[in-house]
Amino acid sequence: MDLGSENAPGQEVRQSSDQLISVIRGEKIIGSPVDFSHGNIDAFPPTPGGRQAWEHGYKQGGKQAYTEYRGDASIRDGVAACLERFTGAPIAADRELIITPGTQGALFLALGSVVEQGAKVAIMEPDYFANRKLVKFFGGEIVPIPLIYEENAAENGPNLESLEEAIKTGVRVLVFSTPNNPTGLVYSQTAIESIATLAASHGVTVVVDQLYSRLLYSGEVYSHFRACKTLPTDLVTIMGPSKTESLSGFRLGTAFGTPKLIDRMEKLQAIVSLRAAGYNQAALGTWFREPDGWMKNRIAQHEAIRDDLLSIFRGVALQVSTPQAGSYLFPKLPKLAVPPDTFVRLLRYQAGVTVTPGSEFGPQSLESFRLNFSQDHTTAVLAANRIVEMVERYRA
Amino acid sequence: MDLGSENAPGQEVRQSSDQLISVIRGEKIIGSPVDFSHGNIDAFPPTPGGRQAWEHGYKQGGKQAYTEYRGDASIRDGVAACLERFTGAPIAADRELIITPGTQGALFLALGSVVEQGAKVAIMEPDYFANRKLVKFFGGEIVPIPLIYEENAAENGPNLESLEEAIKTGVRVLVFSTPNNPTGLVYSQTAIESIATLAASHGVTVVVDQLYSRLLYSGEVYSHFRACKTLPTDLVTIMGPSKTESLSGFRLGTAFGTPKLIDRMEKLQAIVSLRAAGYNQAALGTWFREPDGWMKNRIAQHEAIRDDLLSIFRGVALQVSTPQAGSYLFPKLPKLAVPPDTFVRLLRYQAGVTVTPGSEFGPQSLESFRLNFSQDHTTAVLAANRIVEMVERYRA
Repeated sequence: MDLGSENAPGQEVRQSSDQLISVIRGEKIIGSPVDFSHGNIDAFPPTPGGRQAWEHGYKQGGKQAYTEYRGDASIRDGVAACLERFTGAPIAADRELIITPGTQGALFLALGSVVEQGAKVAIMEPDYFANRKLVKFFGGEIVPIPLIYEENAAENGPNLESLEEAIKTGVRVLVFSTPNNPTGLVYSQTAIESIATLAASHGVTVVVDQLYSRLLYSGEVYSHFRACKTLPTDLVTIMGPSKTESLSGFRLGTAFGTPKLIDRMEKLQAIVSLRAAGYNQAALGTWFREPDGWMKNRIAQHEAIRDDLLSIFRGVALQVSTPQAGSYLFPKLPKLAVPPDTFVRLLRYQAGVTVTPGSEFGPQSLESFRLNFSQDHTTAVLAANRIVEMVERYRA
Repeated sequence: MDLGSENAPGQEVRQSSDQLISVIRGEKIIGSPVDFSHGNIDAFPPTPGGRQAWEHGYKQGGKQAYTEYRGDASIRDGVAACLERFTGAPIAADRELIITPGTQGALFLALGSVVEQGAKVAIMEPDYFANRKLVKFFGGEIVPIPLIYEENAAENGPNLESLEEAIKTGVRVLVFSTPNNPTGLVYSQTAIESIATLAASHGVTVVVDQLYSRLLYSGEVYSHFRACKTLPTDLVTIMGPSKTESLSGFRLGTAFGTPKLIDRMEKLQAIVSLRAAGYNQAALGTWFREPDGWMKNRIAQHEAIRDDLLSIFRGVALQVSTPQAGSYLFPKLPKLAVPPDTFVRLLRYQAGVTVTPGSEFGPQSLESFRLNFSQDHTTAVLAANRIVEMVERYRA
């Protein structure tokens, strides 16, 4: 099975640069290296209190080391209450929530619990690269649904006709992210309600990844899938504190939804890695309980970086839609003299800029690349200028 | 798929006691509750330095939070050197080692990388319960091989004729633990060499779980599979600091062996949970580097508990073999008036003693139960006496 991860974020260190020499143009471009493949938690440090919560967990000893596979009951209670308030619909902590090793762990467990051999699974394109790999791993068949993300936001969103058609021809599972990774598109209330109604009336299981839903920019409105009026029977929502809150080093995520699916996920977790690391779970006690103004400030800082990068890229006519939430930009490259994946490797080699190639997100976005702009503001701006210089240098 | 985990260690809290009332005999037996389903890390605390190592990791920031999926390179260097010395054969840290979320994570990734749909996999019975669940999960076919573990140790070990027969009729993967979980049996040098030669000559992939190999009792000799003269091409060894070292709350394990298998495991890790929690990985810097005498003392304390429990159980003629390593006892129940699984639940309900039913370890050991005796010594002895009292009460 092809689970290629050599272009995956964080794995670039395992690549060789030998083949680049024959196509290289000009000298290296000097500047501080920036790794846009993931957020920089040194620029945006973990939420206050996480470390102390860990130490408190450690001092609790065996009770905290050996939690139930679905996570410590009292921590689940606290998290369920916060998520219930945030998403606008009730969560029974005992039956409807599992703590997972990151949201990656949540996605793995969710799809492992709902994708049977040969099952047709609708995947938006572009969307988070692991979704497609997971469906393949569990023996499902990917049914791609186009996501429109033009610069003119009014027309953006999933192609609902395609989705309806796919469902009518046998799709039984739908997995998607909103805010969308990699475009930052937030599904509108209308889109969300339409998907929910469609899934409910055709018995489709929905896994919705809302990882970035807290990092919502000014003027934008977020609609929680699970708060829709009509809902499918089988629904799992995924969130976690790895991104906006920078708690990535703790590997924590949550999944909440239909009890029988949460049960299955726990049984799978029992053979995958038992539980999210016990002491780390304690850090979830700080989630949604950040100091006053902390989140507002973090959003404002990201919005300022977003706006600067957008104007740099648009200054040389790179197509890029405006992310409504999250910290990803997904610009499209013009025609270049080298293939897009080679350009991405040249960027790293020659300009010290690491991005994730669009090919990771689906076959329709080969000419795009993703940046996680949760970086030091000044350094990110300088690196964006180097990207622009590289684009000019390699333009066909 | 049946991945039943309600009898799995740590999950007993999710059981109800309603059905027990009709068969109960006598009153509750008073005493401090003991959970023999896993080690008590409050009685045997984590190795010194693990917590400080975590804090150091946290202070490293993004570098430590976002390691390669196979784990931080410098931590792998240090761990590889230690494991190389311990196991008596070289390990290339860059190609032959992966850090995993616990040894459960290592087993999941290893079997996920070598068990294809329909593959025949030899499993010792009894052996660690997750092995069988993992083979089923990945669509393999279990071929059971009897493990002999009588009280007379001279005759103990795997049935090599059965194994050879199984391999000749199509088994392509073998997974087993030595020291064996749940019996504490250590495979002899002869057994290990025979298995290695057999696997090598028939192209069988071997996954060997050596989790408990450091906790070796006086007078016993341990043979590392990977130090055999003849070895199969495809071999993965699994170890971790969750047991003897009590670092279970960190969820850390390692797998080391054939580079192409380690590569596959990393690709799978990328979609399962990305990596072992970054800061936690730092605690592996203390592994095999415990203070002088620390390990010797820990072994002596466990040996004293082992000997006391053995004499208590043998005092009422419960059959139990002497563990040569590790902290498990696997006594066999006499004929009782209730089924063994019911007895196990009665033990918990009526005597405050939690053990793991033998049914978890294979269909041949329904009348046995497993205790992890890594517990407070006095409390464990009192609980063993309550077990004996319960056995007498329910004898057929």
